[in-house]
Amino acid sequence: MSIVVVGSIALDDVVTEEGSVSNAPGGSALYFSAAASLFGPVCLVGVVGEDFPREEIEFLERREVNLDGLQVIKGGKTFRWSGEYELDMNKRRTTNLELNVFQDFDPVLKENSRKAEYVFLGNIGPGLQMKVYDQIENPKFVALDTMECYISGNTGELKEILKKIDLLFINDTESQQLSGTFNLLSAARKLLEMGPRYVIIKKGEHGSILIADNLFFAVPAYPVETAKDPTGAGDSYAGGVMGYIARSGSVDFETLKKAVVYGGVVASFGVEDFSLDALKKISLADVEKRLDNFRELTSF
Amino acid sequence: MSIVVVGSIALDDVVTEEGSVSNAPGGSALYFSAAASLFGPVCLVGVVGEDFPREEIEFLERREVNLDGLQVIKGGKTFRWSGEYELDMNKRRTTNLELNVFQDFDPVLKENSRKAEYVFLGNIGPGLQMKVYDQIENPKFVALDTMECYISGNTGELKEILKKIDLLFINDTESQQLSGTFNLLSAARKLLEMGPRYVIIKKGEHGSILIADNLFFAVPAYPVETAKDPTGAGDSYAGGVMGYIARSGSVDFETLKKAVVYGGVVASFGVEDFSLDALKKISLADVEKRLDNFRELTSF
Repeated sequence: MSIVVVGSIALDDVVTEEGSVSNAPGGSALYFSAAASLFGPVCLVGVVGEDFPREEIEFLERREVNLDGLQVIKGGKTFRWSGEYELDMNKRRTTNLELNVFQDFDPVLKENSRKAEYVFLGNIGPGLQMKVYDQIENPKFVALDTMECYISGNTGELKEILKKIDLLFINDTESQQLSGTFNLLSAARKLLEMGPRYVIIKKGEHGSILIADNLFFAVPAYPVETAKDPTGAGDSYAGGVMGYIARSGSVDFETLKKAVVYGGVVASFGVEDFSLDALKKISLADVEKRLDNFRELTSF
Repeated sequence: MSIVVVGSIALDDVVTEEGSVSNAPGGSALYFSAAASLFGPVCLVGVVGEDFPREEIEFLERREVNLDGLQVIKGGKTFRWSGEYELDMNKRRTTNLELNVFQDFDPVLKENSRKAEYVFLGNIGPGLQMKVYDQIENPKFVALDTMECYISGNTGELKEILKKIDLLFINDTESQQLSGTFNLLSAARKLLEMGPRYVIIKKGEHGSILIADNLFFAVPAYPVETAKDPTGAGDSYAGGVMGYIARSGSVDFETLKKAVVYGGVVASFGVEDFSLDALKKISLADVEKRLDNFRELTSF
């Protein structure tokens, strides 16, 4: 029931209306791992430089994240991203980007990762995602996240990998971009035609929708009054979803519905503080407690 | 358990990506009445000119809407609005506006309306809303809707009437405008401080949230694949909410939660066709059926 995740591992400088943080751990694979490891074992595949803080490695080890697939490049510098969010946190601009060791990243999966049943291909180029996918021996359930630049810049490769996967995570504007359709329900249907069995459209503070052939589920977001830092919210959401799925061992629609709710709750913790700070402090019991509260806030 | 509604009654020209309609019945009070009358008796207070179509009056009569408070101005022309929606139907521009008989509208409530327990002060100037409010003898539950131009142009009058009411209907951007706060939860709290016991923030395709002191409820929107015309969606939503409340006879939070779900379902019918066309065709049984389906699509 182990999950393998590949994606970026970064050091971020982030500025929001609520404050700022420098040199803070981030990246899709790290946010995902911090979230999914609340539910069970995770194998992290990625690359960092020698400047990556030792305490972050120790945090992952405490969460029993398998680091066999983590490459530490001697003398190298970790991928860096700097961004500023507007008051409307859906709007952000990148102020600095340094690929550093990520530029030559060649993911190599070790024994543990190759045997994983659950796979999350985090937000990196679809060519790299395919490279990881090809190394998994017998995946039971493969999920993928993507973003604007790959949708417009690597469309062909993206469409190839979409044929292989079970679940696509995508946000609302990206779903419109990739499908060429404005209505989210119609967009999701077009995305299903590209290959995945399930599509999850993430709508940030408006929650998310889950679609399969003839099946639909919608859920609002857990209400967060003070979001400090939305960085990685989509990845911690995916971590919650995949963590729940792997823990339950089932990939039917009913399981995915619950997984979507767990994902939203985990992400709601994540945005309450900068970087991974909030995700580091919580346990699965905290998630369960907030989920019970959320059920009260939404059932009728 | 009768509801009195005051608001605009209009003839609209509407253009959307899905088509267009001319000279079509519209206006906040008409949309509200068409929706609320699915649940029980409604008294309509408003004004039209002699050009207002006879068949629309007949439709209201068939729905047993009390028209004692409807003024028909001899030789007058009905209020007219023309608008065009973008592909993103949250964006529209007004291409023509003629107040006509609405310019001198002086709402006078007759016996039936003055005794109403439930009051909906539709989207007209807060001064007129107060004029109606003052004529109600012993209201049990008063709701109000407002919009951008009154928030910026009649702030003082709006804040006066807000002190009197029980429930404020407002959309997301208007809630930010009136509260001066971006986060919708914080915005709703500030709006509660202005007087109402309950605030409902309407988020269109993203559903709605209901807030009271220490109480919160969120619900997604019923998924509509082809919205033809969003005109009046907020009013038919309010009609569903108030119709359910008046029918149940209770104004506690549990009732309002259900009312919010009914409102969303009624509005989802409304946008499926132009003008009142869809609302005219349905019955409460259709609403109940879609609500059962909606529960399946959202419960976990």
